[in-house]
Amino acid sequence: MFDRKDNLTRERLFEASARLFQEKGFKAATMEDIAQALGIRKSSIYYYIKSKEELLREICLRTMHILLEAAEGIVSRESDPENELKKLIFSHAQLLCENLDLFTVTLRELTPTNAGAFWGEIVGLRDRYEGLIRQAIRDAKDAGVLKEIDEKIAAFALLGMLNWMIRWYSPSGEKSPDEIARFWVDVFFNGAGRRKVDDGV
Amino acid sequence: MFDRKDNLTRERLFEASARLFQEKGFKAATMEDIAQALGIRKSSIYYYIKSKEELLREICLRTMHILLEAAEGIVSRESDPENELKKLIFSHAQLLCENLDLFTVTLRELTPTNAGAFWGEIVGLRDRYEGLIRQAIRDAKDAGVLKEIDEKIAAFALLGMLNWMIRWYSPSGEKSPDEIARFWVDVFFNGAGRRKVDDGV
Repeated sequence: MFDRKDNLTRERLFEASARLFQEKGFKAATMEDIAQALGIRKSSIYYYIKSKEELLREICLRTMHILLEAAEGIVSRESDPENELKKLIFSHAQLLCENLDLFTVTLRELTPTNAGAFWGEIVGLRDRYEGLIRQAIRDAKDAGVLKEIDEKIAAFALLGMLNWMIRWYSPSGEKSPDEIARFWVDVFFNGAGRRKVDDGV
Repeated sequence: MFDRKDNLTRERLFEASARLFQEKGFKAATMEDIAQALGIRKSSIYYYIKSKEELLREICLRTMHILLEAAEGIVSRESDPENELKKLIFSHAQLLCENLDLFTVTLRELTPTNAGAFWGEIVGLRDRYEGLIRQAIRDAKDAGVLKEIDEKIAAFALLGMLNWMIRWYSPSGEKSPDEIARFWVDVFFNGAGRRKVDDGV
């Protein structure tokens, strides 16, 4: 059992390690760096976690749980397939921007080498999330909202636009997460091309 | 001056390091790993390059030059803005699939920490490439092929779909690079939504 102070320190530990793994990379960041960022001794960290790998596992788990919890909520509440898919896109964009360090580290540092023993655990959660996105695309197709497209590759198109945001999104940038999500929805559903029927307008 | 045998060894050195950086990550892969993969002594590597960083720089430079050379060729030969943009999408998808190790390492391992002194050099080339894509989108907008969209975010949509391929594309997968590129072109220009005017057909 952890008391309240322990939990606070644990939280700060995960935040500091996500920030450092994001800045320096998982391999380059050391436990010493993390201890310094927190202003505690390196040996004290081991009271909370056993290894740097355990920190990476926790970061990846949190990212996947944040995404899954939101997506499962949307899927269970929303009955209209078009709204469901749009809400999933907005949710992913919003969560990525709100948890930029967590998402950046998970998307960039989660490799079989870095993950080691917990690779399968995280990949299982990732597959569950991708499965939800594909199912939403399938439902939208069945409802006649989307044309006859390959669900798998359509999901990769969406995840590509969304996840690539870790490479360029900045909280101080011109566009809000909502504006960006609206753009992805528009491109994905309508395309960026000028529709022939609009030509005369 | 390098003779022919030296050049061959240099080529094998870059290939082996791209493969190892892809598999293990740049920080985790050692010069010893690279020497073993080539069947030479570690000390022999230093005849060709000074450091692991120099190998990463060469990998990133090659990736950017491959992309830029192809894109600049398309831009100079193609006068129709719609064809130009479509060819740029096909070219990027094709080159990424043909040089999967190079692209994966460049897109995943090029961080300020890993790149150090050569970060600015590669980012300059990346910006030149992104500039070409944005200009092609602007031209397509001016020609009335694309609707009034923000070029910067439209370029990120395309680069997201394209670059995310390093996370899922497999040469043994169901889809060829050409089929994938055709899908990106279709989603980007027409969208995945069923057009209202098609409903009666």
